[in-house]
Amino acid sequence: MLRFYYSPGACSLAAHIVLEEIGIPYEEEIISARPDGEGVKTTSPAWKAINPKGRVPALAGVPGRIGGAENLLTEVNAIMVYLARTHPAAGLLPTDPAAEARCLEWMNWLTGSVHATAWAQMIRPYRFSADDKCFPSIKAKGEEDLRAHFAYIDGLLADGRDWAVPGSYSVVDPYLLVFYGWGKRIGWDMAGLCPAWTAHAAKVLARPAVQRIIARENLSYF
Amino acid sequence: MLRFYYSPGACSLAAHIVLEEIGIPYEEEIISARPDGEGVKTTSPAWKAINPKGRVPALAGVPGRIGGAENLLTEVNAIMVYLARTHPAAGLLPTDPAAEARCLEWMNWLTGSVHATAWAQMIRPYRFSADDKCFPSIKAKGEEDLRAHFAYIDGLLADGRDWAVPGSYSVVDPYLLVFYGWGKRIGWDMAGLCPAWTAHAAKVLARPAVQRIIARENLSYF
Repeated sequence: MLRFYYSPGACSLAAHIVLEEIGIPYEEEIISARPDGEGVKTTSPAWKAINPKGRVPALAGVPGRIGGAENLLTEVNAIMVYLARTHPAAGLLPTDPAAEARCLEWMNWLTGSVHATAWAQMIRPYRFSADDKCFPSIKAKGEEDLRAHFAYIDGLLADGRDWAVPGSYSVVDPYLLVFYGWGKRIGWDMAGLCPAWTAHAAKVLARPAVQRIIARENLSYF
Repeated sequence: MLRFYYSPGACSLAAHIVLEEIGIPYEEEIISARPDGEGVKTTSPAWKAINPKGRVPALAGVPGRIGGAENLLTEVNAIMVYLARTHPAAGLLPTDPAAEARCLEWMNWLTGSVHATAWAQMIRPYRFSADDKCFPSIKAKGEEDLRAHFAYIDGLLADGRDWAVPGSYSVVDPYLLVFYGWGKRIGWDMAGLCPAWTAHAAKVLARPAVQRIIARENLSYF
């Protein structure tokens, strides 16, 4: 059986939703990315012995190994694509190669430009400098970039498309929901700033599998 | 016909190699990521009208659109997977879903943790702060992280595997070569620091398609 490691509200939320959407039984365990979170922490020696990157999500039960424990798959995009690929009936990844590439195009940008840089600068400036006098300017640049990225996302979703990759709901849509929720979490007026994205998020949130995971992760900001 | 936009020595090198490996005719054009590079610059209004992200690589001729020009695909990982998927005879992406996920696991980490953060902090600290007094500490943290990432990569490649994802050469191997070359470019003693990776890079560099692209991009540091 697959075993899913996640931190409530982290980017692992997207993979958690995908797991729930495909409808198979799975085990789950919280590895908290927050210092004040419950249970084992992502930065703990215990977790780093399993995943040396010290991050979540991770999925145990996937043959092979790059780093970390045998059969442990890391990286949210890899986990989502793996789950979608091995459960094609759920229809979460287009079978057309160009449409599939559009999913990867979205996800790679969300990972590198939105999550790992802009968002991380705002929330974890210590990842970018050991000098805390520099944290304000690192946060400020992160916020500036995140606002631009959010406007870009809203512009794309405003062009008449039904889902992030036009034609069907895919792994990209719950991934976008993660960042939408982060905007709400930090108090941004998402409905005012990003009306098209707000409509998109409402469609994603209306899905029963999404509702169940939002409740399971106890995410009150949605 | 596909048209490939790249900057010599940038991460676009990996996709350029994949294009050459699959053996189809294609057009190419330099969009330079360096202020002193030849031709149109990635930051120019002309390029941003085509790709608003202001980055390379990009591949024209792929149906659909997320942002930017119609039929333009961006993000190096998406381009490499698309090319491999549409040219399965080249064998650059495993058909087994778990092995494919291992490719994405490598690539997503290389994008987010190695390229977009550690490397970018060293080379483009202005992406992280508007205060140039903070550039030295941002660069220093980037270098510290990059050294740790390089050690992690070398450790993985030292475990006896033949290629990055064991079993066959894949899109991950030329992607790793990009970062290996960057280490050489900034004067790091890659053979001393990363002996297993050096052996891996030599195997990649021995491939005729790779040789042709290294020559085409005129990369003297290899």
